[in-house]
This record gives sequence, C-alpha cells and structure tokens, in this order.
Amino acid sequence: MEVKERINRLRELMQRMGITAYVVPTSDPHQSEYIADYYKTRVWISGFTGSAGTVVITQKEAILWTDGRYFIQAEKELEGSGIKLCKIGIPGFPTYSQWLKDLLNEGDTIGFDGKTFSQKEYESLEKEVFKKKIKIIDDYDLIGKIWVDRPALPQSEAFVHDVKYAGKTTKEKLEEVRKEMTNKGSTHFLIGSLDDIAWLYNIRGRDIPKNPVIISYALISEDNAFIFVNKNKINEKVKSHLKENGVEIKEYDKIVEEIENIPSGSKVFLDPSKINRWLYKNIPGRCKIIKGTNITTYLKSIKNEVEIKNQKNAYIKDGVALVKFIYWLDKNIGKTKITEVSASKQLEDFRRQQEEFIEPSFDTIAAYKENAAMMHYKPEEGKSNYELKNEKMFLVDSGGQYLDGTTDITRTIILGPITDEEKRDFTLTLKAHINLINSKFLYGATGTNLDVLARYPLWQEGLDYKCGTGHGVGFLLNVHEGPQSISNKYNEVVLEEGMILTIEPGVYKEGKHGVRIENVTVVEEDITTDSGKFMRFQPLSFCPIDLKGIYVTLLTIKEKKWLNEYHKQVFDKLSPYLEVEEKEWLKENTKSI
Amino acid sequence: MEVKERINRLRELMQRMGITAYVVPTSDPHQSEYIADYYKTRVWISGFTGSAGTVVITQKEAILWTDGRYFIQAEKELEGSGIKLCKIGIPGFPTYSQWLKDLLNEGDTIGFDGKTFSQKEYESLEKEVFKKKIKIIDDYDLIGKIWVDRPALPQSEAFVHDVKYAGKTTKEKLEEVRKEMTNKGSTHFLIGSLDDIAWLYNIRGRDIPKNPVIISYALISEDNAFIFVNKNKINEKVKSHLKENGVEIKEYDKIVEEIENIPSGSKVFLDPSKINRWLYKNIPGRCKIIKGTNITTYLKSIKNEVEIKNQKNAYIKDGVALVKFIYWLDKNIGKTKITEVSASKQLEDFRRQQEEFIEPSFDTIAAYKENAAMMHYKPEEGKSNYELKNEKMFLVDSGGQYLDGTTDITRTIILGPITDEEKRDFTLTLKAHINLINSKFLYGATGTNLDVLARYPLWQEGLDYKCGTGHGVGFLLNVHEGPQSISNKYNEVVLEEGMILTIEPGVYKEGKHGVRIENVTVVEEDITTDSGKFMRFQPLSFCPIDLKGIYVTLLTIKEKKWLNEYHKQVFDKLSPYLEVEEKEWLKENTKSI
Repeated sequence: MEVKERINRLRELMQRMGITAYVVPTSDPHQSEYIADYYKTRVWISGFTGSAGTVVITQKEAILWTDGRYFIQAEKELEGSGIKLCKIGIPGFPTYSQWLKDLLNEGDTIGFDGKTFSQKEYESLEKEVFKKKIKIIDDYDLIGKIWVDRPALPQSEAFVHDVKYAGKTTKEKLEEVRKEMTNKGSTHFLIGSLDDIAWLYNIRGRDIPKNPVIISYALISEDNAFIFVNKNKINEKVKSHLKENGVEIKEYDKIVEEIENIPSGSKVFLDPSKINRWLYKNIPGRCKIIKGTNITTYLKSIKNEVEIKNQKNAYIKDGVALVKFIYWLDKNIGKTKITEVSASKQLEDFRRQQEEFIEPSFDTIAAYKENAAMMHYKPEEGKSNYELKNEKMFLVDSGGQYLDGTTDITRTIILGPITDEEKRDFTLTLKAHINLINSKFLYGATGTNLDVLARYPLWQEGLDYKCGTGHGVGFLLNVHEGPQSISNKYNEVVLEEGMILTIEPGVYKEGKHGVRIENVTVVEEDITTDSGKFMRFQPLSFCPIDLKGIYVTLLTIKEKKWLNEYHKQVFDKLSPYLEVEEKEWLKENTKSI
Repeated sequence: MEVKERINRLRELMQRMGITAYVVPTSDPHQSEYIADYYKTRVWISGFTGSAGTVVITQKEAILWTDGRYFIQAEKELEGSGIKLCKIGIPGFPTYSQWLKDLLNEGDTIGFDGKTFSQKEYESLEKEVFKKKIKIIDDYDLIGKIWVDRPALPQSEAFVHDVKYAGKTTKEKLEEVRKEMTNKGSTHFLIGSLDDIAWLYNIRGRDIPKNPVIISYALISEDNAFIFVNKNKINEKVKSHLKENGVEIKEYDKIVEEIENIPSGSKVFLDPSKINRWLYKNIPGRCKIIKGTNITTYLKSIKNEVEIKNQKNAYIKDGVALVKFIYWLDKNIGKTKITEVSASKQLEDFRRQQEEFIEPSFDTIAAYKENAAMMHYKPEEGKSNYELKNEKMFLVDSGGQYLDGTTDITRTIILGPITDEEKRDFTLTLKAHINLINSKFLYGATGTNLDVLARYPLWQEGLDYKCGTGHGVGFLLNVHEGPQSISNKYNEVVLEEGMILTIEPGVYKEGKHGVRIENVTVVEEDITTDSGKFMRFQPLSFCPIDLKGIYVTLLTIKEKKWLNEYHKQVFDKLSPYLEVEEKEWLKENTKSI
C-alpha cells in the first residue's frame, strides 16, 4: 500500500468514527525514543523514517512535524506523498497543537491512541484546545485497524545484568529509590520508561533494537516492588534474581488492576513525560499524584565507580574496533568497492569481534559527501547508498552495546582531497570540540551554561548547528538518556561528578558536506580554589581525529596541546590491542602536530 | 539609638502585637531597587547599608539575608549588632522563608508592611509557610511606629523628558502598550514600578536619589491612562504635557479607589514582582488578573534610534569626564592628599562640567587596594576611606544621569607598582571582558547562553566572580533595568537589537584586591548567513583600559587586536573634547600594544 492510499484509508475510518483530526506521534506505551516495529505507526502512515516526528491527518491536510536533525531527510522522504513538512523550532511554523487549535472549531474531535501519548503531551494538547471546546478522544488506535501486515509485539528473553557490571544490586538501588520517594512525600512510584526499569532491576532484554530493554512497567511502594511483564520473557535465572532482590513479577497487562488497587490516601510519584495517558487515566481519583522527573532517571545518570571503570573498558574495545575499521578503509578505498552500507557492516563486524559486544547502540550514520549534511542520515541499499571514493569526507557516527557499557562516537574521515572550505569547516568543528571538552568549569554549571563554549568558534565564522551539543549516555541502556544535556535550550540539571555526556559540535552544509567530531566524556572533579570546586570533562572515547582535515595554523597553542595529548592517549590505550600494521598506522595518525 | 536598642524596641512592640517574626525587606511601595530615605527601614533596624537584604527579627534571633556582593561589607557592618548573616545563594544557608517555616509553629504569626512586599514575594512566603498553618499579617508597619526621626517622604518636582531625547511621544508609547494589552487579553494594565511609569509618560523627577523618577502609580485601560501622584509635584508644563498625551492626573492615594472601581469582568494585567501586596489585595475579586512581566519593561528595554543616538553622545561626555579624572589622578597622586571619598567628589565634579548632567546614576564605588574586593563598596568619611598612594590598584565604578542618557562604567586604575598576582588577575579580567564583548552570537541567544563566555578565561585559572556578568541600563532612568541580563541564572529573554547591556567580569580576592572592567554595550545586527542572523555587542563606553595592568604575553593576537582597535576609538572619540596635555596623555594611554 502506498502512503497516499494508507492516508485515504485512515481518512475513511476517521469520517466513520467522527474524528476531525487524527494524531500519530512517534512513541510506544513507554514513551521510548527508539520503538519496536509494532509501534512504528508514524513511519507506516507517512513514509518518513526519521526517529522523531508527529503526523496529523485531517480530511484535507496531512502534515509532519519534525526537528532540525531531519529537515533535509523529511523533505526527500515526503516527496510525492502529499504530506507537508512543519519545521519544529523554526520561527513561523506553529506547533501541531497550535495548528490544531487554529484549524478546528467547537465540537470538532481530535483522536489518537492514548498509549502512545505521554500524559505531559496530552496535557499540553488539552491546554491548547480546551478554550475552543474541541473534543479529545484518547483511546482510538485507528492505525491498528488499517495496518494489515502489522509486525508482532516483541518477545525477547530478559537477562540479568550482573552486579560486576552494574556496581549496585537492585536491593541497594531500591533502598536509594525509596529514600528519595520519602523525600518527595510519596508512598508509590510508578515507572513506565523501560530504561529506568532495566536499570533499577538490573535486567536487560532485546525487545527494542539498539535499546537493550524489556517491555514492562514497574510500581514501587514501601513494601512492594512489582515488575509487570509478559512472564514468557522471564527465565528461571531472572526469576530468582528478582525474587532475591524483593521484586514480584506480575503479568504485563495487570498493571491497570494493580493501579486501581492503590489504597486511598496514597501519594503516587510519576513522571508525566514518561507515563502514558492511558495509564494515568486509570489512577484512582482518591490518590494524590506527585509529578517530577523519574527518581530513577537522576540516580541512573550518576554512574558509580564500577560502572565508570567498566565504561572505560568498553570505550577502549570500541576504539580498537573503530581504528581497525578506519585502517581497513584506508587500505581498501579505491581498491575494493565500498559503499556507505557495506562500510557500516564492516564496522559492525569489527565491533562484533570485541568481547561482550551485543549489538549496535543506534543505527550507524555512515554518510559520504553531501549525505553528511543530514545529521541523522541512514544509508539504505537501493534507496540511498553512495559508493566511497578516495576523495572527500565520510562521516561515521556509530556505537555499540557491550555488557560493560554503551558507546557513541563520531569521526569524520578524510578519504582523499578535500576543498579549502571543507578543511576549514573540519578545523572549526575541532576547535569547537576542544573549546568545550578542554574547559574547566565551576561546580553548579548546567549544560545550558556550557553549550556556547562549543558554538563560540563556529559563531565567530557565521556558522552554527541546529541541534544540541551533547546528551547523556546510558550504561548498556539507551544511547540518549537524561536528565542532563548540553544544549542552548534550558536544562536546570547541574553537571555532577560521574555523569556521562557526549560533546558533538558540527558543521552541516546542505548539498555540500557535513562534519561532526564526537567524543563521550565523564564529568570529574578538578581543583578546588577560593572560588569553589571546579569540574572537567574526561574523554572516554579514544580514536584518532583525522589530521588530514586540520589547518594547523588555525589552531591555538592550547588547542594543539590538547590534540597532541589526546592522540598520545589514543595510541597508548589502543595500540596494545592492534596488529603490527594497524599499530604503525595508528602511530602515524596520532603523531604530534 | 543603637541598632541593639532599636531591635529591642521592635521586639517589645512585636510582643504586644502578637507577632512571632517580623520581616523587614529592602523596598518601597513600588518595589524600587534604590529607595528614598523614608523607606530605608532595613538600614535603620540593622545598620547594614548595602543596597539589598532582608532582616528577620524574632524574640531570640535577628538575621540578615544578603547576596554575594555584600558578604564582606555585611560582616563588617553587623559586627557587635547581634545580627547574624545568612548568605543568599551559598549552599547550606536557608532562604528567609525556609528559615521561618522551619522555626515557627502552627499559630505563630509573621508580620510585615505589605506595601514593601511585592505580591510575588508575598506569594512565595505564603506558599512556604502555608502547610504549617503559620499566620501572616501583612499590614503592620512596626518600624514606622518606633522610628522617631524618620525622614520625610520625597517631594521633588516632575519634569518633561523631551521627545528629542525620548524618541517617541507618550501617545505613541500608549498605542504600543495598548496593542500589547490586547495581545495579552487584558483590558487594564496596572503599573507600580516608577521607571516604567516615567518611561511611558515621558516624565522624570528627583524623588529617589540616582533614579530620576517620581513616586506614582499608573493605570491604563482602552479609554483612560491615569497617573496617581502627589499633585504638588506636577507643574503647569508637565500638566499640559500629560493632558496633550491623553493622561489624566489623580492624587497618589486615590489609586485604591480607582482600582476598586474597575468594572466587573475586566482583565487586569500586572507584574506580581512590581506590584505591592497591599495594592494587589485591593483588586476586586470580580476582575481577572493576568500576570506577566510589565509590558512597559520589555518595550522600554529596546532602545529606539533616537535614544541610541543620544545614549552614544552621553557616553562620549562621560568618557571625557572619566579621562579628565584619570589624568588628574595621574598628575596629582603622591603630591596632593587624595582619598577614596575626595577622588569620588572630583570625578563627580568632572561629570558636572559636562552638558545636560543631572546627578550620579548610583553611589560611586571608589575602592582602593583590598576595599575593591567588596564588589559594592562605598567609601565614607570617618568610616572607611583609604588615602590613595602611588602604588596598587584603584577600582572606580561610577555613572551619570544625563538628559541624553544613563551611564555606568568601571575602570581599575593602576596607581603604581602592583604584584604579579594583581597583574595576572587584571589581565585575566580583560581577557574575560574581551571574550564576551568581542563575540558574534546567533540571534535567539539569551544572556544565560552567553554568560560563560566571560567566565571561561577565569574558570581555566580557578577563578570566578559571584555575581552576574551584565545588566540592562535605563535611559535617564535606573542604572539597572530588565528584562534582559547576562547571568548564569536562567533568564529567557532573547537579546534583541537595541538592548543595552553592561559587560563587567571581575576578580575579587578578600583582603587582597579587586579588579573589574566594565563597558556598556548596545546589541546590534551583524552578518546573516545560511546559519541565521548573527548579533554583536557594540561598545558605548569609551575610556582607556589601563595598559600598566596587562601582561601582553597573556593576550592572544585577537585580543590584542580588539584592545588596540578599541583604544583607537577611545582616542578618536574623546580627544576633540580634551585639553592639549590631556590629549597627549590619552594618546600615550591608548597606544597600540
């Protein structure tokens, strides 16, 4: 079925059901960023494959809202579908809820599947359309009714994430969580987000590609800790692990029943952006609801010593795989046929050779030449898949899930001659990267305070990137996790010792080229002076930054010093795990400038 | 009467009135930053003369809350008074409302004068103590009952601020305000803040030293514009100016009567941080209240072309006065007796010689040696008044009110030999200043986004300053005005073309020395590229930065270039107004490095 036909079917159904506008977000009942195929309703209805977006369909209009990472890709993929693009964050474009408010009239009806809407999203839509007396129906999964070959729900087996990796037992984590529940004046804590549940219960699974989680809910009280999960996913080992740690297993769909049984006067803590509308609606009115960021999200973000030690090890393995890959590329480019897709596969193979590797942590962005201007480009055989030549730049943003950590790294590889403009943009991106990663900052600073340090060198040359500068990274969990971030959008979370963050400025020129240099770092304490305690970013990622992309004369002495010291570490840490020729290649590619 | 005795009298009165804790903020009925002597109740009860602070008195305790600008000064001034210091913004110190909540019990009573409390402050206190059922009595001016020699209320005459300075007539401004009122869905706009009223009605006065305003309220509706003011202050010229512009004059104390007459169903827009609790309480329940930042505050912050032209002129006059002062200091230091106080007077005299000068825009901070570590030090004869010698550093932060603008500038003057540490701190402060003032930034950035650019060079050396980096400046109005600022504390206001901001990083070492370099700037458009519109800071202040304080080797080529170009402008702009010897001195002190 073509996208146009799918939309027509939906419109017919909408008309029969009395729905004026139907909203299809990118979500699952757990408000996951990456979602299982079963929940990819927005991709199915629109043909747009980016990881974020909302589609709204009326009888006359079909519109996709997506953000700066996907403008170029969305324009390509929407071609001929009749779906228009609304650019999130660009002045002049309304939000989808503003648009709905402006278009619809009293008595009109907005419909959607409440399981795929967070309570927060629901409230903001309701607030927008409330005054115009527009109705909302939140329990219509219309896509489900017309999607005939819909994939099955995921059925992976859960496994225990050993305490030698996690650093803390579930018992210890539950103790911390319950302490925080008391601090917040709550008696119950309802969790919908899969990475929070996986972290708390020290279990993992393969229900969502790239995010090693199990589809489940959790409910914690002073006396109980429940996990709601399809019991077929729980083997004996996991069962006894959960039992030992005081966790009771209930069937996935019993969550509503359990919620309805929460005693009168209880105070339920939950994160409205991580609990779906359907679940929220079922909390009895006799309970008080306390809203805030998931308690687990903050605790999870501050990595313990064991996690950091493991994570460091995972990044060395990941660096080794990446060096082997770049060496292989260097030796074979122009000799064998290599495409964006085949290069991605080769890189995945090198990661698979590393111990404790499980799967990639996200879809590899392997973007040659102008494809790299699309920040989240994904090559696909038969669709978009350049052959690599020995010229121009090749941007590779990739990562792995290992038992001892989650990695994420971007290198822009110079395959041959590049233009002055490309070399200048590469050098400016490097300056941006160094200006932030090499900064000492006063304790108390947020990512919002620091974001401009990466943008500054680009701004001085009239350049900018239309996305954040960095995000938190999970530990054998989601490659994007909060609550911390480095962004010009306000985030009040103070960067604490043990938080892990990417630093990834870039330059993106549509139709021309893209450069990004990304390292993952851990926040550490630096010196304490009369002015207070200072912090620093310690790089975890080790892999050479391509010297062929650098105008050395544009670097300051301090910048050169950082690069040379970083490259020395790259060599020292990775060379013990390389073959002789690879080692020689690495020596040459990490030499002092 | 000694402070101790004053507190005892207050405690007696509190006991009689049944008040457990009495709060004395630093405010007047208009939530002014600088206040007339009549309202200086907090200074009277505590002896602390800083411009910000709150005192809370119970039968057993007396505590002052103040911020980082005043820690050193407060500790000095509170000595022997029995009043303890609580440091705002320093971890471990509660806010005064948290402290009250923790100390008091159900049935206890907090008292204060509601006219000196903004509605916002009132609400935050109420929210804090509400749960413990602590009572609040908001109409007790107890200080008024025991302050026998209390100064009189100010009685200055208002004058018209000509449109040749203001650039827009009151009629035009009222039109803009009413348009914004409609946008915000309001029928009435109640203004309590004096600078907003002065700006809107193009009048000024001398009711508050350093802030050229008239004590008044304003109320705007679609059909009416009222000013509530003591009619004795309004001469014929002002009367006919107001009449021509459609403004009706009512007596100051008729404001409540007028508020009570607002018709049912009206929607009153007001700024809860700029309307006192007493006024707010008197708004009839039948009116809807719409809260937000004063409409006038935002409109006022974006200076029009005429204002900017005038402001530029005022800064040249101000620079001339300052150069004459530094030259005079240079020639007389070590020859005549000069103290912090006499130097301040001399500087004021030089300003007075300039056309259209009215008064200083704030108390001059003339701080020699370690006095400069107190960010807002004010020398006083017989109390703290160093004699200047030809050694060490002298920090002078001063400004003037001119008919064509308000100025604010800080220079740290090297009077003779300084230590390596002092020279290093001076140079780092300069680097901090240049790093921000010389930055190009993408349109959409807020002061919060940019703040770190000034702190960065200091942080790398383990230094920081415990205050914001910059503030808005009025136009023949308050030297501190919003809504924009440059601060690590969150401020969502985007820096717009025409906004005026100070840039004033510093290094402050208690007991040793202080350095601050402050220029006022106006935000201008820079280039527009594919990445968007870029903005820049254009300096308005022109005065040499002391070359004797600079380790030239610590400056980058870009920093030297900025300084040399800035100094060239200083010479070109100021030299036409100087005597021959002054001109020669300026040539030497603005030479290229």
